[in-house]
Amino acid sequence: MGFEQAWLNYTERTSCEGADELQYICVDIEEDFRPAKTGLTEFGADELIENGVRELQNALEGMTGCRPVSREQPDEGAGKGIHLLFQKGIPAEGYRLSEKDGSVKIAASDSRGILYGIFALLRQIRIGKTLRGMEFSKTPDMPLRMLNHWDNMDGSIERGYSGESFFFADDEILINDRTVTYARLAASVGINAVVINNVNVKDAATWLITERYLGKVRELNEILSGYGIRLFLSLNYAAPVELGELESADPLDERVRGWWKKRMELVFREVPGFGGFLIKADSEGRPGPFTYGRTHADGANMLAEAAAPYGGLIIWRCFVYNCQQDWRDYKTDRARSGYDNFIGLDGMFLDNVVLQIKNGPMDFQVREPVHPLFGGLTGTNQMLEVQIAQEYTGQQRHLCYLIPMFKEILRFRTHVKSKEDTVRDIVSGKAFGQTNCGIAAVANTGNDDNWTGHDMAAANFYGFGRLAFDTDLTAEEIAGEWIGMTYGQDEQVMETLQYLLMQSWPAYESYTSPLGIGWMVSPNNHYGPSVDGYEYSRWGTYHRADCQGIGVDRSHDGTGYALLYREPNAVVYDDKEKCPDELLLFFHHIPYLWKLRSGKTVIQHIYDSHFEGVEMVDEMVERFRKLRGKLPQKAYERMMERFVHQKEHAREWCDQINAYFYRKSGISDERKRKIY
Amino acid sequence: MGFEQAWLNYTERTSCEGADELQYICVDIEEDFRPAKTGLTEFGADELIENGVRELQNALEGMTGCRPVSREQPDEGAGKGIHLLFQKGIPAEGYRLSEKDGSVKIAASDSRGILYGIFALLRQIRIGKTLRGMEFSKTPDMPLRMLNHWDNMDGSIERGYSGESFFFADDEILINDRTVTYARLAASVGINAVVINNVNVKDAATWLITERYLGKVRELNEILSGYGIRLFLSLNYAAPVELGELESADPLDERVRGWWKKRMELVFREVPGFGGFLIKADSEGRPGPFTYGRTHADGANMLAEAAAPYGGLIIWRCFVYNCQQDWRDYKTDRARSGYDNFIGLDGMFLDNVVLQIKNGPMDFQVREPVHPLFGGLTGTNQMLEVQIAQEYTGQQRHLCYLIPMFKEILRFRTHVKSKEDTVRDIVSGKAFGQTNCGIAAVANTGNDDNWTGHDMAAANFYGFGRLAFDTDLTAEEIAGEWIGMTYGQDEQVMETLQYLLMQSWPAYESYTSPLGIGWMVSPNNHYGPSVDGYEYSRWGTYHRADCQGIGVDRSHDGTGYALLYREPNAVVYDDKEKCPDELLLFFHHIPYLWKLRSGKTVIQHIYDSHFEGVEMVDEMVERFRKLRGKLPQKAYERMMERFVHQKEHAREWCDQINAYFYRKSGISDERKRKIY
Repeated sequence: MGFEQAWLNYTERTSCEGADELQYICVDIEEDFRPAKTGLTEFGADELIENGVRELQNALEGMTGCRPVSREQPDEGAGKGIHLLFQKGIPAEGYRLSEKDGSVKIAASDSRGILYGIFALLRQIRIGKTLRGMEFSKTPDMPLRMLNHWDNMDGSIERGYSGESFFFADDEILINDRTVTYARLAASVGINAVVINNVNVKDAATWLITERYLGKVRELNEILSGYGIRLFLSLNYAAPVELGELESADPLDERVRGWWKKRMELVFREVPGFGGFLIKADSEGRPGPFTYGRTHADGANMLAEAAAPYGGLIIWRCFVYNCQQDWRDYKTDRARSGYDNFIGLDGMFLDNVVLQIKNGPMDFQVREPVHPLFGGLTGTNQMLEVQIAQEYTGQQRHLCYLIPMFKEILRFRTHVKSKEDTVRDIVSGKAFGQTNCGIAAVANTGNDDNWTGHDMAAANFYGFGRLAFDTDLTAEEIAGEWIGMTYGQDEQVMETLQYLLMQSWPAYESYTSPLGIGWMVSPNNHYGPSVDGYEYSRWGTYHRADCQGIGVDRSHDGTGYALLYREPNAVVYDDKEKCPDELLLFFHHIPYLWKLRSGKTVIQHIYDSHFEGVEMVDEMVERFRKLRGKLPQKAYERMMERFVHQKEHAREWCDQINAYFYRKSGISDERKRKIY
Repeated sequence: MGFEQAWLNYTERTSCEGADELQYICVDIEEDFRPAKTGLTEFGADELIENGVRELQNALEGMTGCRPVSREQPDEGAGKGIHLLFQKGIPAEGYRLSEKDGSVKIAASDSRGILYGIFALLRQIRIGKTLRGMEFSKTPDMPLRMLNHWDNMDGSIERGYSGESFFFADDEILINDRTVTYARLAASVGINAVVINNVNVKDAATWLITERYLGKVRELNEILSGYGIRLFLSLNYAAPVELGELESADPLDERVRGWWKKRMELVFREVPGFGGFLIKADSEGRPGPFTYGRTHADGANMLAEAAAPYGGLIIWRCFVYNCQQDWRDYKTDRARSGYDNFIGLDGMFLDNVVLQIKNGPMDFQVREPVHPLFGGLTGTNQMLEVQIAQEYTGQQRHLCYLIPMFKEILRFRTHVKSKEDTVRDIVSGKAFGQTNCGIAAVANTGNDDNWTGHDMAAANFYGFGRLAFDTDLTAEEIAGEWIGMTYGQDEQVMETLQYLLMQSWPAYESYTSPLGIGWMVSPNNHYGPSVDGYEYSRWGTYHRADCQGIGVDRSHDGTGYALLYREPNAVVYDDKEKCPDELLLFFHHIPYLWKLRSGKTVIQHIYDSHFEGVEMVDEMVERFRKLRGKLPQKAYERMMERFVHQKEHAREWCDQINAYFYRKSGISDERKRKIY
C-alpha cells in the first residue's frame, strides 16, 4: 500500500515573491530567553526544530528549486534566509512571522510555535502570497487540538471509510514512513494531541498499557512528539479486572486506586511526555464506575489523581445513554441523557479531567442543536468532540465539507454569561479561564493511498486542524487554503472545488434529513436511507412519524429537553413558533401541513428540499466533470467514481424519503414531480 | 458436543400388546422372489437389513427388556418372532405389516421396504398400539423424499438455527456416531435422499467432486446407503472454471460437455450408488448458463446427459429472479420470475432432470399462494421444495409446526387436469406418470444436542418425512406420532403438545404477517419485525403500504401474476371480491377500510389478528408451563427458555406492526387497545 502526501505535496514549482531568495535557515536565541514550559520534553523540543528545518528544506527545494542550507550562524554575505528566533513574550505555541529586506523571521517562545510558524510560512509560499513585508502573528485558539482515531488493533477502524488502520495491524503497533508523514500532516495544521486507538477498548487494546506494548508506544510517541503532538491512549475502564490483576474496578477501592497509581507510573515513565487517556465509560456496553454504584466523577478523579504527578490528562466522554430503550417508551429521551448524567457533577472533577462532549446531544447527525452541557457546565473543563469521519454524512463516498457546521457550533451562544459565552469561548478556555480544554475530532484517515478515501475529505482533516488553531478563519478561507495547498493555483480548480465544498453540507442535508429530524439511515452501517430503520429499535432514535405529522416533542409538553438550555435559547426551542426551521422536527412533533417560516408546509419542504438536494449534486458533478485534465489523473478518477455514486445515491435518498412521506401523508407534491 | 436420540430414544419401557413376546428375528425369502431394482447397490441392500435388524434388537430391548435374537431360520419351538419376508408383488419401498399368532411379518420386495416396515413396527410399539391382528401396508407416496442441508464446509449453516454443521467442519467432511444417528432418524421417517452441502456452492465445496474429498464422500455414502438414503451433492455450475481446468462453463461447448462426462464418471465410480446433484444456477449471484446466453434446459441437460449412464439425477432449482430490482419499478414482479423463466422450457428437459420448485413464488413466507409452475408445467419432472428450517417462521426460537401448511400446499388443486391435479398428484408422479419427482425440505438440523434447537422443531423434521411418505396422514396424526415417539404416552403431555403444535402456525401468522403480505421482517437475518425493512430494497419484496391501503396489485391491472394460474384459480385470485382473505394482500392493493369476508375491515383485521396472535402465544406458554416435571428436565428448560422469548417477541411483533399501521392509516382500533 503506497501513500501520497496530501496537502504536503511540494513537488510543484510555485511562484511566491521572496521565496526563491531564501538561502539558509538558522536558529537565533534572544539573549535573555529562557525556554517556556511547553509540556514537551527537551528531547521533543530539539526534534521539533530539526523536523521543522527539514520540512523547510524539502518544501523549498520542491517549490522553488533551491534548498536552503541550515547553519548555526549566517556568515557575512550569506544572502537572505530564514531565522528561527526563540524570543520571550510570545504566548505558548504562538508564532510571529515577518519579513524584512528579503529575510524571513519566525519568532516563538517554544519549539511548537516555531514549527507552526514554519508551516505557516510554507502555506504562504504554496498559496503564492508574497512574502514582502509580511508581518503577522498567531496564537492557537484552543489549548487542545486533538484527533481521536477509532482504530482497532486488528487493523480495522470503527466507522473508518479510508481503508485499514496505519497505527495497528494484527494486534501490533505499526511504525514506518507513513507514521512520519501522518505526524507532519497533523502538525502542519496545528494538531497537538492524538488518541491512536478506538474508544471502545477491547481485546489486545486493553494491553496497550502493559509491557507488551509500551516499548512500541514509546517509539511511536518519539515520532509524534517530534512534531509537537502528545500521544494519548483510549483506556479500558475495567483494565485492572480484564488484565486479570484485580477482581474489581471500583474507583473507591483502595486496591484499585493503588493499582492505577502503579500503572500510571509505569506508563508515564516508559513513555516520556505521554499525554494521558481518553475514556468511554458506562456507554454502549463499555464498563465504568456505574457497575460499582459510583459516579463518573469518582471514576475520572481516581484516574486523574494517578496521572496528575506526570502532567497527564484524563479525557472523559459524556456520550452516555441508555442504549436498551424501548421504542414504546415516549418519556425517555436519549437527547437528555448526556446532560442528565453529568450536570449534577459539575465542579466535582479534578483539574486534569476534561469532559469531552459531542457537538450535539445525539450522535453526529447532519443537523443537531448544540449539546446543552455547553453552557450547562460552569465549573468543569470541557472539550468539544466533532467527527470528521463522515459516519452519518456520507462516509467519505459523498462529499460533505463539515467546517461550516463546526463554525456554526463554535459560534453558538450558550448564554452562560452575558458575553464570551459561545461554545468557542468555553472550549478555548476563555469563558472560565481554563487551560485543559479544546476540541477533538474523530479522525477520517486510514491506509488508503490518499489517506481519506475521498480525496476531498482531506479538506475536513485539514480544515479541522486549521479551525481549531484559528477559529476566526471562515470555512471558505479554509477551503481555499486546502485547495491551494493540495492542487495549486489554477483558478478554475480553485473556484470549482470551493463551490463543491461549500455546497456539499447543505446539499447533503437537503437530500437526506429534513428539518433536524435525523436518523433515517440504515441501522448499524449508517449508510443510505432507511426511514423507519431506527424507529422501532432500542437506540432511542425515533422520528415518530405518523400520517398526520412527524417529529419528537422535546418541549415542556414532551420530554422537556428544550428546557435544558439557558434562556433565551430554551424559550426559542421550546416554542414551535419560534424554533428555527432547521431544528423544528428535532424539538417538536409537527403536522405535515404546518407552515414553516419559509412559507412552505412541512411536507412541501420535505419534497422540495429533497429534489433540490439532488439537483445540487447534479450540478456539483457537472462542474467537477469539467476539471478533467486539471487535477492529477488518479485523484480525478477516484473523485469522479465517488461523485457518480453520490449522484445516484442522492437520487435514492430523495426517492425513498419522498416516497415514504408521500405514502404516509397522502399529500401530493404541489409541483407534481415523480414520487414513487 | 453430545447429542440425543430425538424420537428414536428407546430407553423407556412401553406397554404394547404383543411386543414383549417377540424372541427372534429372521429373514425369509419367497421361493420365486427375485430382488427388485432398488436403485441401491447390493452392498446397500445387505447393510440395510443388518441395520434394520440391529435397530429392532436395540429398540425392543429398550422398550420391552427383551432383545430378540437374529437367526437364519427360526428353530422349531423358537417361540414368536419377527419375519422379514422378501416377497414379490409389493411395490418398491413399500411394506406389508401383519401379525398372526403372536408372530409379526414384515414383507417387502426390497430392503428399503423391509427397513421402513421395521420402523413402522417400532412406531406401533412405541406409541402403544396393539400388535394383535395388525394388518396394513403402505407404499410411499413420493418417489423422492429428500432433505437439503444448507451446510457450508467451514461448519456454518446458511439459515441454520440449531448450531453448526455435523457434516462439515474446517473444510473437512465429518463422519462419526452422529452421522449414523442422523441416518437412522432420516430413514425412520422414510427419507431416501439427502443433499449434504449448501446450494450456494463456494470455496472448498466446489472441490467436493474432486479427489480431495471423494474418498470421504464415499465413506459417508456407505453409512447413508446402509439406511436406504441416496447421497446427493450441491454443485457449482462453474466448477470447470473454478477448479481451474477450463475457461468456460458454456453448456454447449464440447470441451465443457466432455469435462463433465469425465467428472461424472469419476464421481459415480468413486461413490457407488451416488444419487446426483442439486444445482442453484443463475440465482442470487450464483453462476449458470445465462452467462453464455444459454437456457436452464441447456445447462441441466448437459449435466443430465453426463450423469445418465450412472442413473444419476440432476435436480435443478427454479428459484431464479432478479435480485437487483429497483423498488421504484412497479412492473417487475419477483413472484412471476420462476414461472417466466421456466414455463417456456417445459418438455425440454431430459428425464433424469427434476425441477425443484419452492412451494410459493416468493421465499418460504408464512403464507404464500402455491407456485404457479405447479399446474403450469406438464412435461417436466417436478419436485416440491419446502423449508423446515424456519427462516421466516421464527427460526426455531418460535414454535411453528409447518405440517399443516404443507398439507394445504399438497392438496392445492392446480386444475392442470380435471382430476389428479393437486400438487401432491404432480410431485408424486401420479398426474403425469413420472417417477423422478417428489418433495424436498431445507433441513432444520445442526449439531445442537437436540438436533433442532427448539426441541419441538423436531416435529417438523419428523413430520416432513412422514408426510412425504404418507400424504394421507393428517397434521394432527403426525403430531401425535411425534409426541408419542418422543415423550411417550402421558395424556397431558400428548394433549398439551398437540395443542401447541396445532396452534403454532396460525399463531405465528397472526402476530406477524396479515393477509398474505409477508416480508415485514428484518433484512438479512430475517428475524423479527421490520415493516419497511424490505420496502425500498433490491429484493423485489414490497408491500406498497401507504396511508390509504396496502398490498401488491398482481391482478390483470397490475403485474398480471394472478393470471399465471389455470382457471378457475386465476379468476379467483384476480378478483379482489373472490380472492381468499388470507391471500388478499398478496394479490391486491386494498384500502384499509375494505371489508373482508369476515366482516372486518382490513385495518381492524390487522389489529385484531396481531393482538389475538399474542394471546394465543400467552395461552400456549401457560399450558406448556404445566408440563414441568412431565418432560425430561433438560428438554423442558430448553423449550421454556424459547417460549419465554417467543412470548415477549410476539408482543414486539404485534406492537411494531400495529404501531406502523396505526401511524400510517390514522385509523383507531375499534376496541381501543394500546397501540404505540
